[in-house]
Amino acid sequence: MIHPNMATMLGYLLTDVELTPTLAKECLSAVNEKSFNMISVDGDTSTNDAVFLLANGATGVKLETDGDLEAFRQALTSVAQLLAQSIARDGEGSTRLIEVSVAGVPDESLAKRAARGITVSPLFKAAVHGCDPNWGRILARLGAEGVPEGLLARTSLSIQDTEVLREGIPVAFDRDSVRKSLKRETVRIVINFASGSAQATAWGCDLSRRYVDINAEYST
Amino acid sequence: MIHPNMATMLGYLLTDVELTPTLAKECLSAVNEKSFNMISVDGDTSTNDAVFLLANGATGVKLETDGDLEAFRQALTSVAQLLAQSIARDGEGSTRLIEVSVAGVPDESLAKRAARGITVSPLFKAAVHGCDPNWGRILARLGAEGVPEGLLARTSLSIQDTEVLREGIPVAFDRDSVRKSLKRETVRIVINFASGSAQATAWGCDLSRRYVDINAEYST
Repeated sequence: MIHPNMATMLGYLLTDVELTPTLAKECLSAVNEKSFNMISVDGDTSTNDAVFLLANGATGVKLETDGDLEAFRQALTSVAQLLAQSIARDGEGSTRLIEVSVAGVPDESLAKRAARGITVSPLFKAAVHGCDPNWGRILARLGAEGVPEGLLARTSLSIQDTEVLREGIPVAFDRDSVRKSLKRETVRIVINFASGSAQATAWGCDLSRRYVDINAEYST
Repeated sequence: MIHPNMATMLGYLLTDVELTPTLAKECLSAVNEKSFNMISVDGDTSTNDAVFLLANGATGVKLETDGDLEAFRQALTSVAQLLAQSIARDGEGSTRLIEVSVAGVPDESLAKRAARGITVSPLFKAAVHGCDPNWGRILARLGAEGVPEGLLARTSLSIQDTEVLREGIPVAFDRDSVRKSLKRETVRIVINFASGSAQATAWGCDLSRRYVDINAEYST
């Protein structure tokens, strides 16, 4: 729209199932919220992201029951999440995919904000790059995203399946072993506030010197 | 509050003028909004920022007229802005102070959001680091911050006093000369939407490889 100077995303999802435009739109919007709208490379939005869902009905298969629709929606979600993760993994200078899952939240919008907030935090992204299991930066960002103190106080948090915080209390853990596990291609952060049934997952990538190189030297 | 693992800011402002607690609070809140609350190093908030204004009344000078109060408020603003700028200039890995002024906006909250948004944008911060007069990234961020299209279409923008956009139309400029000017210690971005009387100024710093080094290697 403004100046074609940035990464843009164009996503195409094709299916040969029969779908009405209304239903296709509804499905895609819901799936978007759990996939493409939950990734971030650096918090800067690109100028013309778009996702299309095209259904030609070639198989003649109709989604007649709620079960059919749910199965289709789940399949669509899996594909969209796979594509979305690929974008985050492929971010400028990225060396690792970060997946942040937040559960036990009173409402979904807070869950999303919390999960996305962590994937956007330059401090946390740099810590991941340096294999630093810095859960303090995660908690600080959660606070900054508006997670109420009552929830923060009962946070359980694990990094690469190692529990580092249980209901707000730090758990002793083998720092060297977690540092080593942070070298893996995918870094998984799991957070639970034990305060509700809403949840969200967001994806991002680490912040490397290469990100700076690419974006500082980009010039026509 | 959570984990003393981050930069924190403690600001002390001392005056020997006579001030009631109510007036001091009012002054400091207003000044904060134009100084400390308008800086960012990386968008990550620290855990226990605080600013104090202490008035001992030693001179016996009272702020009796509106003019007195205004003069005091202006002096306090200058001092607070100077301190705030120093913090941004001193950010991790910073090599330059960035000052973004946004004027001609219908309301102040939008002006603040726009100005702060640019200082927080990793893409723009990296461009400044690379001396790239990348106004496309500025406009993209303004759009992402919710500046309406009608305003974007009439944006005037200058980088280091060189006009690069006039009422939405790109102006030819000497790219090499602006690149050179971006090496100066302070980078000034001035934006005008010609659509109101509200304005705001925010400060930040460039994003360097050193930022990544410092924050990736920070570990106990």
